[in-house]
Amino acid sequence: MSKDYKQYFADAVQNVRDEGRYRIFRDIRRKKGEFPKATWFREGLEEKEITVWCSNDYLGMGQMECIVEAVKSAVDTAGTGSGGTRNISGTTRYHVQLESELAQLHKKQKALVLTSGYVANEATLGVMSKILPNLVIFSDEKNHASMISGIQRARCQKVIFAHNNLADLEAKLKSVPLDQPKMIAFESVYSMDADIAPIEEICDLADKYNALTYIDEVHAVGMYGETGGGVTEERNLAHRVDIIQGTLAKAYGMIGGYVAADEIIIDAIRSMASGFIFTTSIPPSTAAGALRSVKVLKLTPEKRESLHERAKMLKARLRQAGYDFVDGPTHIVPLMVGDPVKCQAISDKLIEEFGIYAQPINYPTVPRGEERLRFTPGPLHTDEMMDELMSALEVVWEEFELKREKVA
Amino acid sequence: MSKDYKQYFADAVQNVRDEGRYRIFRDIRRKKGEFPKATWFREGLEEKEITVWCSNDYLGMGQMECIVEAVKSAVDTAGTGSGGTRNISGTTRYHVQLESELAQLHKKQKALVLTSGYVANEATLGVMSKILPNLVIFSDEKNHASMISGIQRARCQKVIFAHNNLADLEAKLKSVPLDQPKMIAFESVYSMDADIAPIEEICDLADKYNALTYIDEVHAVGMYGETGGGVTEERNLAHRVDIIQGTLAKAYGMIGGYVAADEIIIDAIRSMASGFIFTTSIPPSTAAGALRSVKVLKLTPEKRESLHERAKMLKARLRQAGYDFVDGPTHIVPLMVGDPVKCQAISDKLIEEFGIYAQPINYPTVPRGEERLRFTPGPLHTDEMMDELMSALEVVWEEFELKREKVA
Ligand SMILES: Cc1ncc(COP(=O)(O)O)c(C=O)c1O
Ligand SMILES: Cc1ncc(COP(=O)(O)O)c(C=O)c1O
Repeated sequence: MSKDYKQYFADAVQNVRDEGRYRIFRDIRRKKGEFPKATWFREGLEEKEITVWCSNDYLGMGQMECIVEAVKSAVDTAGTGSGGTRNISGTTRYHVQLESELAQLHKKQKALVLTSGYVANEATLGVMSKILPNLVIFSDEKNHASMISGIQRARCQKVIFAHNNLADLEAKLKSVPLDQPKMIAFESVYSMDADIAPIEEICDLADKYNALTYIDEVHAVGMYGETGGGVTEERNLAHRVDIIQGTLAKAYGMIGGYVAADEIIIDAIRSMASGFIFTTSIPPSTAAGALRSVKVLKLTPEKRESLHERAKMLKARLRQAGYDFVDGPTHIVPLMVGDPVKCQAISDKLIEEFGIYAQPINYPTVPRGEERLRFTPGPLHTDEMMDELMSALEVVWEEFELKREKVA
Repeated sequence: MSKDYKQYFADAVQNVRDEGRYRIFRDIRRKKGEFPKATWFREGLEEKEITVWCSNDYLGMGQMECIVEAVKSAVDTAGTGSGGTRNISGTTRYHVQLESELAQLHKKQKALVLTSGYVANEATLGVMSKILPNLVIFSDEKNHASMISGIQRARCQKVIFAHNNLADLEAKLKSVPLDQPKMIAFESVYSMDADIAPIEEICDLADKYNALTYIDEVHAVGMYGETGGGVTEERNLAHRVDIIQGTLAKAYGMIGGYVAADEIIIDAIRSMASGFIFTTSIPPSTAAGALRSVKVLKLTPEKRESLHERAKMLKARLRQAGYDFVDGPTHIVPLMVGDPVKCQAISDKLIEEFGIYAQPINYPTVPRGEERLRFTPGPLHTDEMMDELMSALEVVWEEFELKREKVA
């Protein structure tokens, strides 16, 4: 590599640093059975016990004994990797059963498992323009990077509408001929803003303007709805959304992603999406663990109730103490800082001094000036842990001179 | 979904059918300890015992007891999923150790693990144009779908050169100004053609014309080189290739992919590639299994020798019996059929009547007229299994009136 090339890479990294986006990954190890406790490893320093407040294993399924057993048992039966793409020896009993379970979960004819939620979005949205001539995709401005990436891949016309803004969406839908293929792509729970899309109204607009609908329920599956089918289940709207996308990597505690839809839609994606076809399928044991997790969460609404109770509790305590946080309808609790340097420094201080791990969320994940810490309380976060968190926040908020509302 | 939309999806699937590309996935279950034996499940029919001849778990690592134990032990220690993206609680001891091991394997400063080999190619190639201004990517015409996808994502100038053709590559390199950033992207082992790139000569051209080099060693890592570092290790060329990409899903028997390169290159990819940043990291147990697998394969050249001996044996037998196959320098054995319908029918017959599972490879994976069955013999394919395979081929070749050379 010549000096010039080195310089290009160095410049690119410097640019990331200048924008305050340079990340140092925290090296941790969760302890099964003690989550959200984990051990933090630092070069040259002692290990430190921490409490994880930013995991997306929202319900702690990743340490549930029956999930762990399902994984181990499948590894014992079938070995580790699948050894092939889905078409070349990589389709197994486990994959077939998981897909059937996911289809049922969303009351759809079929489901298709991909290697991640990211790939599910990218591969599915990316192939739509090959199927639907002159497709226009209407995309919520806060959509996740994987949806944006899929829409770019589709190389079709893309219209961005203001976040959750029905008037803006309608105006934009109206501007495209009724018979031209359209798809509205949006999320149910937006994980950085902790709000929820007006799904029913979006579906009404889709009907009115003859558009297909695509929803990302990554931060909702397992956690919303009577059986964990997401916000579309909770609001009884699954039948009105054409394609429901989800992940196995968050509430279900494994890895992998999927889409669920009519058989013909799934068959087209299965047959045409490069990111599905040309990659090794998820291991049998991953499918087995996910299958067990989906089944367990269908039958344990208590876990969902406990999640929402914990989130409400944390919000109540933050409110009482006068913090500026996003008081939304979801289980995610963003605590506003409004400064990238402070946000990082607070996060560092929290973990180093208090053993509290919450990740700073800075630009470009959120707009500048809206930097925040994102907390994901769950059933395993005890009152005691919340006490610790509140005392730690008290100290750092003082130290960094951040404002809190006066509370009577 | 309106009728029109349904029709678009139906048309798309029909088009796939018309091109002979419609796939019906075979639902199998491997039996740990008995691989390449597996069970085949069919709706309404009895289960059938089969021998898998098309797995990319080339060395059978997916059933090796110490790998299975590494996975189970990590699940017992740390649970199932990682619960986060690499930056948000998804970096663990296991990931860090695996990356350090992979860097060593390829004698590079750093390595970065992504969720698959597909994503490693797509995310890495896809971000290069953001780092290197006015980049031109020179891409071998037989490059894998994931590289093509990454190059498309890069949205930069792309120049396709004839497969393994140095003269064509040179002519094309020459046509771009010396100081304009260039990258040559190619594979070491091409898995459908079973040939190997002239790596040294490509690197010479890269030096001469000031280009970076990117190699996909997906079908070589674990299987070539003294410690499994791929063809670049075997030919002592790792230091001459700027970015080495590989998978954990084939010879290593797990899932996941990676790139290895200079620290500054890895830091740039890590900081900028959407497909790396915005997705849940691989499970700790996947990283643990892969780490063990890489370590084991470093120290067991016997497995590599046995793989190559088995491949040579199969090729010798096919040659002796006058079959038309690709007699290349690799462990992969493509047997030519030259007709998509026959290719599928032969594959069906082989599995149904003889319990031999080999996947037909049709257009567009290979050009029309070059349809083939692709065999991947490995250390676990016994002489007896080869006898069975040869007798079965004898029968079907006769039945489908396929030619064989007369052998003296
Ligand atoms: C809204 C959204 N969609 C998709 C993804 C990707 O899912 P996965 O982690 O399974 O790749 C994420 C986060 O990772 C997300 O937040
Ligand atoms: C050359 C090549 N590169 C990359 C990949 C993708 O690797 P993975 O299966 O780990 O996604 C494959 C096959 O799957 C391949 O054949």
